[in-house]
Amino acid sequence: MLKVEHIGIAVKSLSESLPLFEKLLNTPCYKTELVETEQVNTAFLQKGETKIELLESTGPEGVIARYIDKKGEGIHHIAFEVEDIEAEMKRLQAEGFVLLNEKPKAGADNKLVCFLHPKGTRGVLVELCMENKKPLPGKR
Amino acid sequence: MLKVEHIGIAVKSLSESLPLFEKLLNTPCYKTELVETEQVNTAFLQKGETKIELLESTGPEGVIARYIDKKGEGIHHIAFEVEDIEAEMKRLQAEGFVLLNEKPKAGADNKLVCFLHPKGTRGVLVELCMENKKPLPGKR
Repeated sequence: MLKVEHIGIAVKSLSESLPLFEKLLNTPCYKTELVETEQVNTAFLQKGETKIELLESTGPEGVIARYIDKKGEGIHHIAFEVEDIEAEMKRLQAEGFVLLNEKPKAGADNKLVCFLHPKGTRGVLVELCMENKKPLPGKR
Repeated sequence: MLKVEHIGIAVKSLSESLPLFEKLLNTPCYKTELVETEQVNTAFLQKGETKIELLESTGPEGVIARYIDKKGEGIHHIAFEVEDIEAEMKRLQAEGFVLLNEKPKAGADNKLVCFLHPKGTRGVLVELCMENKKPLPGKR
């Protein structure tokens, strides 16, 4: 675990929330990205070495839409950058943490990611992420 | 807004959660601190330029106890380091954000802090913080 790579915030509407977070953080959004596999539109703002990632669901059944239905808008997850995601997944499993995906999967921002079950981390949804150096099979 | 100074996580029990977060982050806690004015025991772990601050209520009426009663354990707030807290408070007020304290107050870790109302920030409790260069009147 190297640093807090980003903090994910669930919002109902990117078009409404992005100008608000640009004002709050006093910095412009530098990238937006649709992650179809996760059914989210994302927008990124940088503060120091950490990104703020706004997450909007692309449909009413997406994971972010269901999160907002249950808990309202707000902080959704913390992502830590790791040096070697497979080694870190093994280390955490050996420590008793429960992984939500058994293999690293492609996330936003050209990352390989793995989530930990929040029941094992005091309600905090933790993401591990690592720069994707080579494309995953089947991804262009 | 310079960087994410820390992320605050509300936990029921520091003695149970601290070993868990030390394992998760693979780093030891470097400081614990009681903040009597806020009725919290805190414990800090560092990752890159950001701290993870675990927050345990000192009593059943504390703000963290009430938060956990309502929402469960989990991510409580994001704190951004600012260069000049009074200037930043003025800037944000002028942008329409609502401050929860009108003047900077003393927080954990020798900081002057100010919170923004989460209704104005899509449910995210945002803290501004700045190193306290001189003691506040009445504080030793």
